[in-house]
Amino acid sequence: MNIPKYQNIQEAHDRIRMHIHRTPVLSSTGVNAIAGSTLYFKCENFQKTEAFKYRGATNAVILLTESVASRGVATHSSGNHAAALARASQIRNIPCFIVMPRTAPKNKITAVRSYGAIITFCEPTLDDREKTLEKIINLTDATFIHPYDNFNVICGQGTAAKELLEDHPDIEALFVPVGGGGILSGSAISIKALNHHIKVYGCEPDNADDAYQSFKKGRIIPSVNPVTIADGLLTSLSELTFEIIRNHVDEILTVSDDDILSAMKIIWERMKIIIEPSAAVGIAAVMKNPHLVHGKKAGVILTGGNADLSNLPFAEK
Amino acid sequence: MNIPKYQNIQEAHDRIRMHIHRTPVLSSTGVNAIAGSTLYFKCENFQKTEAFKYRGATNAVILLTESVASRGVATHSSGNHAAALARASQIRNIPCFIVMPRTAPKNKITAVRSYGAIITFCEPTLDDREKTLEKIINLTDATFIHPYDNFNVICGQGTAAKELLEDHPDIEALFVPVGGGGILSGSAISIKALNHHIKVYGCEPDNADDAYQSFKKGRIIPSVNPVTIADGLLTSLSELTFEIIRNHVDEILTVSDDDILSAMKIIWERMKIIIEPSAAVGIAAVMKNPHLVHGKKAGVILTGGNADLSNLPFAEK
Repeated sequence: MNIPKYQNIQEAHDRIRMHIHRTPVLSSTGVNAIAGSTLYFKCENFQKTEAFKYRGATNAVILLTESVASRGVATHSSGNHAAALARASQIRNIPCFIVMPRTAPKNKITAVRSYGAIITFCEPTLDDREKTLEKIINLTDATFIHPYDNFNVICGQGTAAKELLEDHPDIEALFVPVGGGGILSGSAISIKALNHHIKVYGCEPDNADDAYQSFKKGRIIPSVNPVTIADGLLTSLSELTFEIIRNHVDEILTVSDDDILSAMKIIWERMKIIIEPSAAVGIAAVMKNPHLVHGKKAGVILTGGNADLSNLPFAEK
Repeated sequence: MNIPKYQNIQEAHDRIRMHIHRTPVLSSTGVNAIAGSTLYFKCENFQKTEAFKYRGATNAVILLTESVASRGVATHSSGNHAAALARASQIRNIPCFIVMPRTAPKNKITAVRSYGAIITFCEPTLDDREKTLEKIINLTDATFIHPYDNFNVICGQGTAAKELLEDHPDIEALFVPVGGGGILSGSAISIKALNHHIKVYGCEPDNADDAYQSFKKGRIIPSVNPVTIADGLLTSLSELTFEIIRNHVDEILTVSDDDILSAMKIIWERMKIIIEPSAAVGIAAVMKNPHLVHGKKAGVILTGGNADLSNLPFAEK
């Protein structure tokens, strides 16, 4: 297995730097008071396409050879990777084919289309997504860019934690949401290379806890029909991301959907910034485990901001 | 009438600087594309107590003499001025008496109480608010800090536009919401003193258009029973704010509640930051009058972020 090294992440950073936003790191006295620690939030909700996914997609697209690139790129995704790949493909002016379930939210379909991608709709099953993508690739010879089981994508995702540590080298822990493991594995490589004393925590919804189970058992145990409000974290680890996570991550912490909602509300109310439910899983894990960082400085990656404003989960208590 | 000069705003700035946040100025490629201009948003939604009101309240509280201050401060407000005054009074550790209508939103009551203010509830009428406040002041001899009809408050509010112009001296126009006229009059004094070529636009809901009417007729014409989603802009100009506005503001622009909602949604969706409806009135006016700034640079003051998350005005189209 070809495992990314920190040097690959450095190279990825140099490659994508002019295309991405160096996102701000924000702090809030109010949130710190609640958490009992000093937290630095890496705001990937302010990244282009509103999620860290743009880092990995951009790195992968730039690295394609001219002849391969000219045939385009393809993926199946109902979420942030689709928008990221669509926008990244514009950098090289190449076709981008996206397979989306016909049930995908309208706003995500609109976003993907606005970046010029060609959308093919499929049934909302993994089986039909994969079959439809295969057909598209057979027809077009486009290159499949997997959302996380991809060396170059992982290297791109690792640049967010690298930037955070450049801004705040004195953090003692980092909290990162984990779905398929792209941002967690990339972050862990960066952090442990730069300072192996910093604890890296993967943070996962307990209704989609394949990373927790796999980490504990030492072998991949995929989630079966996971259901969580953190819709970006439904995917399961790949062999590649699991291999990195088992070697570089200190612990996987799980949180409930209620924990996620409370944490999301704290960020919205106290920091006046919009994050999506999946992006609240890191701060939810801090709130649930304050002893891990009590009186310390810690980083938290806010992974994205694609909340559906027409269907918000805040209700009067 | 004692009219603030720019020098008074400079002095206010020096006085409050250590207590306030110098709020960031944000820009968005996506919003610029929609507006056809380059917009710089002064983010007072990130100010302490989540609104520009903290600037004016802080300046007013600091300027009280020791013996006057010791008897406390008082105001009637269901909104951002109440929270601002309550928090500002903590700087001097003096009592703060707030008269709030018993119908005020729970989250605002909680915020005001969290800053240690003593709340007296009244009926939700201006008459009962004023009478209840009078009783409180008779009992306590506290000093009434009016939300906008106050020299020192206006000087404090004027520091936001001063900071914006320090960061972006090349803007050609500034858009500022107007309710009672505190932030508009303070901003206009700063802007015209620093560069009188910069256009200053007051922006007002057309269902609460007393500033528009007063500006046009040359005399104060208060709003009667105004109804608008911009609940921070229901108040009418005072003699003092009107005098400043008629002399320093170029035009009052009005927008509908639909314009306000659309603009608010653009800011939430494109910039991933939370602003309240009243804070969207400036950008709504830009969107409605793109010819005023086409191809130019302009500033917009986002006045506050106290949106009620349990009752959001976004509905599926």
